[in-house]
Amino acid sequence: MHCFFDPKSVAIIGASRDPKRGGHRILKNVKTGFQGGIYPVNPLCDEIDGLRCYPSVLDIPGPVDLAIVYIPARLVPGVVRDCAKRGVPGVIIESAGFAETGAEGAARQNELKQIAAETGIRLWGPNCMGLVDMVKRHVFSFVVGSIWDAGALIGDVSLIVQSGFLAAGFVVDVMSHRGVGISKACSIGNKVDVDECDVLEWLLDDPHTKAIGLYLESVANGRRFMDLCRRSGKPIVVLKGGKSARGAEAAMSHTASLAGHGGVVRGALAQVGVVEAHDFAQMMDICCALARFPEPPKTNRHRVAIITASGGAGIVSADFVDEVGLELAELSETTRKELARVYPEWMPVANPVDLFPAIDLNGPDAYRVAFEALCADPDVDAVLFHLFGLRPENDWSAVLAETIRRAGKPVIGWLIGRRDVLEQAQRRAAEEGIPVFRELYRATECLAAVVKQRARGNGSESELRDAHEVPAAAAAMLEAVRGVLDEHLSKRILAAAGVPVVEEKLVASGDEAEAAAAELGFPVVMKGLSPGKIHKTELGLVRLGITSQRDATAQFHSLMEAMNGTGSVLVQRQVRAELELIVGMIRDPQFGPCVMLGLGGVLAEVFRETVFAVAPLSRADALRLIARLGAQRLLDGFRGAPAVDRDALARILMTVGQLGCTCPSVREIDINPVLVSNGVPVAVDASVIVDG
Amino acid sequence: MHCFFDPKSVAIIGASRDPKRGGHRILKNVKTGFQGGIYPVNPLCDEIDGLRCYPSVLDIPGPVDLAIVYIPARLVPGVVRDCAKRGVPGVIIESAGFAETGAEGAARQNELKQIAAETGIRLWGPNCMGLVDMVKRHVFSFVVGSIWDAGALIGDVSLIVQSGFLAAGFVVDVMSHRGVGISKACSIGNKVDVDECDVLEWLLDDPHTKAIGLYLESVANGRRFMDLCRRSGKPIVVLKGGKSARGAEAAMSHTASLAGHGGVVRGALAQVGVVEAHDFAQMMDICCALARFPEPPKTNRHRVAIITASGGAGIVSADFVDEVGLELAELSETTRKELARVYPEWMPVANPVDLFPAIDLNGPDAYRVAFEALCADPDVDAVLFHLFGLRPENDWSAVLAETIRRAGKPVIGWLIGRRDVLEQAQRRAAEEGIPVFRELYRATECLAAVVKQRARGNGSESELRDAHEVPAAAAAMLEAVRGVLDEHLSKRILAAAGVPVVEEKLVASGDEAEAAAAELGFPVVMKGLSPGKIHKTELGLVRLGITSQRDATAQFHSLMEAMNGTGSVLVQRQVRAELELIVGMIRDPQFGPCVMLGLGGVLAEVFRETVFAVAPLSRADALRLIARLGAQRLLDGFRGAPAVDRDALARILMTVGQLGCTCPSVREIDINPVLVSNGVPVAVDASVIVDG
Repeated sequence: MHCFFDPKSVAIIGASRDPKRGGHRILKNVKTGFQGGIYPVNPLCDEIDGLRCYPSVLDIPGPVDLAIVYIPARLVPGVVRDCAKRGVPGVIIESAGFAETGAEGAARQNELKQIAAETGIRLWGPNCMGLVDMVKRHVFSFVVGSIWDAGALIGDVSLIVQSGFLAAGFVVDVMSHRGVGISKACSIGNKVDVDECDVLEWLLDDPHTKAIGLYLESVANGRRFMDLCRRSGKPIVVLKGGKSARGAEAAMSHTASLAGHGGVVRGALAQVGVVEAHDFAQMMDICCALARFPEPPKTNRHRVAIITASGGAGIVSADFVDEVGLELAELSETTRKELARVYPEWMPVANPVDLFPAIDLNGPDAYRVAFEALCADPDVDAVLFHLFGLRPENDWSAVLAETIRRAGKPVIGWLIGRRDVLEQAQRRAAEEGIPVFRELYRATECLAAVVKQRARGNGSESELRDAHEVPAAAAAMLEAVRGVLDEHLSKRILAAAGVPVVEEKLVASGDEAEAAAAELGFPVVMKGLSPGKIHKTELGLVRLGITSQRDATAQFHSLMEAMNGTGSVLVQRQVRAELELIVGMIRDPQFGPCVMLGLGGVLAEVFRETVFAVAPLSRADALRLIARLGAQRLLDGFRGAPAVDRDALARILMTVGQLGCTCPSVREIDINPVLVSNGVPVAVDASVIVDG
Repeated sequence: MHCFFDPKSVAIIGASRDPKRGGHRILKNVKTGFQGGIYPVNPLCDEIDGLRCYPSVLDIPGPVDLAIVYIPARLVPGVVRDCAKRGVPGVIIESAGFAETGAEGAARQNELKQIAAETGIRLWGPNCMGLVDMVKRHVFSFVVGSIWDAGALIGDVSLIVQSGFLAAGFVVDVMSHRGVGISKACSIGNKVDVDECDVLEWLLDDPHTKAIGLYLESVANGRRFMDLCRRSGKPIVVLKGGKSARGAEAAMSHTASLAGHGGVVRGALAQVGVVEAHDFAQMMDICCALARFPEPPKTNRHRVAIITASGGAGIVSADFVDEVGLELAELSETTRKELARVYPEWMPVANPVDLFPAIDLNGPDAYRVAFEALCADPDVDAVLFHLFGLRPENDWSAVLAETIRRAGKPVIGWLIGRRDVLEQAQRRAAEEGIPVFRELYRATECLAAVVKQRARGNGSESELRDAHEVPAAAAAMLEAVRGVLDEHLSKRILAAAGVPVVEEKLVASGDEAEAAAAELGFPVVMKGLSPGKIHKTELGLVRLGITSQRDATAQFHSLMEAMNGTGSVLVQRQVRAELELIVGMIRDPQFGPCVMLGLGGVLAEVFRETVFAVAPLSRADALRLIARLGAQRLLDGFRGAPAVDRDALARILMTVGQLGCTCPSVREIDINPVLVSNGVPVAVDASVIVDG
C-alpha cells in the first residue's frame, strides 16, 4: 500500500489540457502539493501545463510508483497491463463504467481483477474519487482540489468512503465546514483489488490518524475487517448503507455489492467495539470527538455533569443524557461547596449546573469556577458544557482547553448563539482540541460514544482463549449424517457438543411410550417425527400436556396413524418455562458462521429483531450478545421469576458458534425454542442442517 | 394581548445610561425599530440617549400601552402596581428573582399574580427575555439587539420559548444562522399571567405567522392548549423539556413548574396533530419545512422519490425514508421514459434516482429533466433531492423553486459540498422558499413531518360528536359509592356504562359456587373478594382452571377460609385469550381525565410504555390511540389469531374516557386485564376508585 500513500513519482494517465476534463483537474490537483516526479500521459499531447507529456506509461523514463487513471473505461484494462509491464506497483483507477454499469462493465472489472491476480499490481478503484492526504497535501483525485480555498482543516481523522461521487461531496463538505480536522480521505469505489481492509490496515499504523470513519455499502471480507478492528488501538466509526430492505435493494443495483444482513453487520461491529454511525455528518462528528478522546475511560461509570447557563437547556440535556444511556453525576461535597461559593444564596446546588444566576451575581468568572470544579470532581466521569455565544469578545477556548487537559476526562460542548460569534468560537475550539457541536443531541451522543469506548487492541485475543472446543463425539456424529436432521438427532448432536437438552425418549410402541412417560414424569409432550417433515406443529404432530399413561398410549397410536405408520414418536418431559428464546447458527457470505439470539414465542412477534455475533464467541462476546437483546427486563427475572442464568446461556451460544467454526458441513442450526425454566435454559426443539 | 404585539407607546422601566445594564440595552433595542412613543423610566436620570426620562410611570404624560420592566425583583410589584394605577394594559417583566428562586421569590410572584387578578393588567414574564417581532422590528428584550447585524432572516415561523436565558441563546442562534425566517420570538418565562395559550391564540390569527414552534417545560392549561391546537389552521411543533425522570426533576427545581407525565403530554400532542420535536435546532428545521408546506397533502399516500447524484447517498436516503415511516415511490411509466432519455443505456431506471451517470453523459441538465419528471409524477407524493454544491457557479434555486410551485407537492433538499458554495445555495434556497438542510436524516424527518400532516382546524369538533354519553344507570351507581370499589362492583358499573365484561356470579355458599360454575361453563376462575384488598393474586385469592363442580365447592371453602370467613367469592368464566391489554383512566393535573392503553401480562414487562389520550375521545382519537400502541403486529392477528376488533376496543376507550369526563368523583379506573379472545376485548378484572 506504500505506493498509494507515499509515492515518489506519479503518472497521470488521461491528463488533459482541457480544464473541463477530469484528467486536467487531477494533474492540477497533484501539482498543487505533491513534491515528487509528475508524469502526464496522453498520446495526443507533448506537453501539458509546463510538464512533458508521454504517449504511454511505457515511455516514461524514470521509475513510476503510482499511476492515476482517468480515461474511458474500455481503455483501462490495456493501460493497466502497460502499468504492470512497466513495473508500476499501484494504480488508482478513477474512471467509472465497470461492475456498477451492467454486464459489459462487470466483464471489464473482471479483467482488471485477473490482471491484478496475474501480475501482483495493486489496483485501487475503479469508479472512485481517489485519495487525499491533507497532511502531505497529496490530492490524487479529480474533484477536491478546491478544498484548500474553502478553509480545509488539517487534523487526525481519516476517512474511507466506498461510494464514488458521494465521496466527492462528502469529503469536500467535511473538509470545508465540519470543523473536523482531516488527515486522509480515501475513496475506494468498486474495490476490484484494494478494499477497506487494505486501507484500514494502513491507517491503523499511520501516525497522522487518530480516529477512522468508514462509509461502506458492503464488507469485502468480514473476518479480516473484524480482526483489524479487534487489534486496532484507534477508535473506528462505521456508517453502513443499505440496512433496510429497500436500501439493500438500492445497494444491489448500485455497486453490485451484497449489502449483507443488516443484523449480522450490526452484530459484527458491536462485537469488535466499532461505533455504528447513522448519518454522514454525524459520523464525522463522532470521529471528531473520538479523535480528541481516543482512550477508553479509566472508570466503568458514565456519570455526566452538565454545565449550562440555561435551566431549560439543562433539562433537555438531562433528557438526552438519559436517552443515550449515560447517567447524571451526583456532585461531590467539594464541588458542591465550590459551586455554593458562586451561587446566589437561594439557589440549591444540583446537576445540571445552571449558572445563569451565578453569572448574574458574580460575572462570567463563575463559569470558569464551575467548569474547573466539575472537571476536577472525582465523582464526575465526563462533562457536557453549554456555551452561549452572544458576544464576540468572549473567547474561553484556551482556558477551557487547559482545564480539560488537566482533568484527563472527556469534555464536550454545545454551542448556541450568534452565527458570527459561534463560527469564530468553533474554529478556536477546534484549534484547542475541544469538540464542540451546534446541536445539543449531537453533542450528547458524541459524549456517549467517547464515554462508552471499550478497551481496545489485543484484548480480544486473550478473550478468545476461553472459547471451548467441540467435543469429538459431536464432530464424529456430524460426519455420519447429512440433510435436515430430525429433532431427536439434532438434539443428540447438540447434547454431545455440550448444549443442555430436554429429557426425551424415542419410542416404538404404545407400551414403550407408556413406560417412557412414566419415567420422565407427567405431564409429557409427544411428537411424531416423520422423515423430512420439520413443521410438526402445523402437521398436528405435537401433543402437549399428556398427563396419564393411558393417554400416552393413545397418543402414540394417534401419532403413528397421522404419519401413516411411518416415522417414530418422541416422548419428552414438558418444560414449564418463564421465557422462550431462539438460538441459531447461520453462515453469512461475508462474515461466515454467525450465532443468532432472539426472543421466542409471542415475544418473537413483537421483537422480530434478532441479534447476531460472528463465531467463534468468547465468553465476553456471548455475554455482550445477550446484553444486546431487546427487553433485558425479561432476562433479569420479572414478576418474581428467577433471572436467566446468563453464563449457561452464554455457554450454549459459544457451543453453537464453535460447531459452526469447526464443522464446515453444518450449514445451519436452529434451536427453537430454548426454554428458560427456573432461570436455566434448555433446548427443547432443534433442527441441524448438514450439507451433503 | 394587543398591547404586547401592537403597542403605540412603550415605557422602559429600569432604562439606564450604563451600557452594561440590561435596561440600557432594552432602550437601545426598542429605539432601533419601534416607531411609537418611547418613555424611559428611571428616578435617577432626567434624560437618556436623547429621550426624556421619567422618575415613575405615573409621571409619563401620554398614554402608555406597554411597560417593559427590568429592575431588581423586589421593586417589581410596586412598579407593576403603579402601571395598573396608570392604566397601562400590559407589562413585560424581564427581571429574574421570582418563583424560580425559592420561597421569597415565589411570594413575590404570587403578589404579581394577585395584582393581575385584582386590576386586570396583563403581565408577561417574569424571568423572561420578552418579545421580538422581526416583521415590525420590535425588539422588546434586553438581549437580542445584535441580531440585525448577524444576518437575521425575516420569515413566517414564530416561536414561543418558556425558558429565560435559553430563549436568548436559542433565538439569537435561530435568527443568525438557521436559515429559518423568523416572524416573532416570544419568551414567556415564569408565566405568572400570560402563558403559552395566550400567545399561541394571538399567533394563530397573526397573518405573518405560518408555523409555530414552542419550547415548553410545563403546560399551564392542557385543555385550552389542546383546543387551540385543534382549531389551528397552522402547523404547530412542540419541544417539551423534562421528559425523563431526571429531566423532570430538573424542571421542578428550575421553573418551579410541573413537568407533567411525559406520556400524557406526548399523547395530548399526538391527539391534536402537533408534531413533537426532539432538539432545539431540529424544532426550527421542522418549523421551516412546515411553514413552506403548511397544507396537509391531498393524498393519504407517502410515496417518496429520491433524486441524487450519488448511489451511496441514495442508499442511505432509502434507509431513512423507511425509518421515518415513508415509502419509496414506484415511478410511473411516463417518468421512467423521461429518465431513460437521459440515462446511459446500461443503466436501469429505479428509485432512488441516481443521476451521476446521466449527468456524466448529458451534462447537468439531466438533473433538471429528472427533477421535473419526478415533481410531475402522479405516483410520487413527495420528493427528497440531494444537491452537491461543489462549484460556486451553479445556482439552481430559481429553476427548482418554479418546478416545486407548479408541482404543489412537498419537496425538500439535502445540501452537501463546499461550505462557501453551500452557504450561498442555502440562502438562495431560503429566499426561493425551498427547505434545504445540511444533514440527510434531518431533511428526511422534515419531509416526514410535512407529508404526515393531518387535516387541521374544526375537523375535531365534528369528530367529537360521536363521543357517546355515559348511560344514566352507570352514573347513578357511581353516585351511591365511594372508595376503592371491589372487582365485581367495578365491573358492574363498567358494564352499565357499556364496557363488555366477563360473565361472573357472586356466590355465598359452596352450592351456589357449584351451580354458578356449571351455568358459566368450565373451566372457571374463582376469586376471593376481601374488602379493601385489591392485590388478590398476591394474597392467593385467585384460583384458575377449575374444571369440576366438586372442585368449585372445595375452592369456595378454601377461599373463605383464606379470608377468615369475611368477604365474598366470585365465580368467573375463564377466558382463553390471545392477547392481554390494560385500559385505564387517570386524572392529570394539567390535562384532566386521560385514557391509558397498554399491553398486559408478560408483554407489559417489555413494553412499559403506555399510551395516553385526553378524554373525551372521539372514535378517531380512540383508533389513533390504538394505532400508537407499540407492537401493532400483535393487534393484527399473529400466528393465525384473529385481529383485535379495533372498533370494539375503541368503544371501551371512549366509554372509560367519558366516565372520567362526566363523573368527576371517579378518580381512577384500572381495567387489568382486558383480555382479547377471538379478537373481542372483554374486561376481566377492574378497579374503580371513587372520591368520597
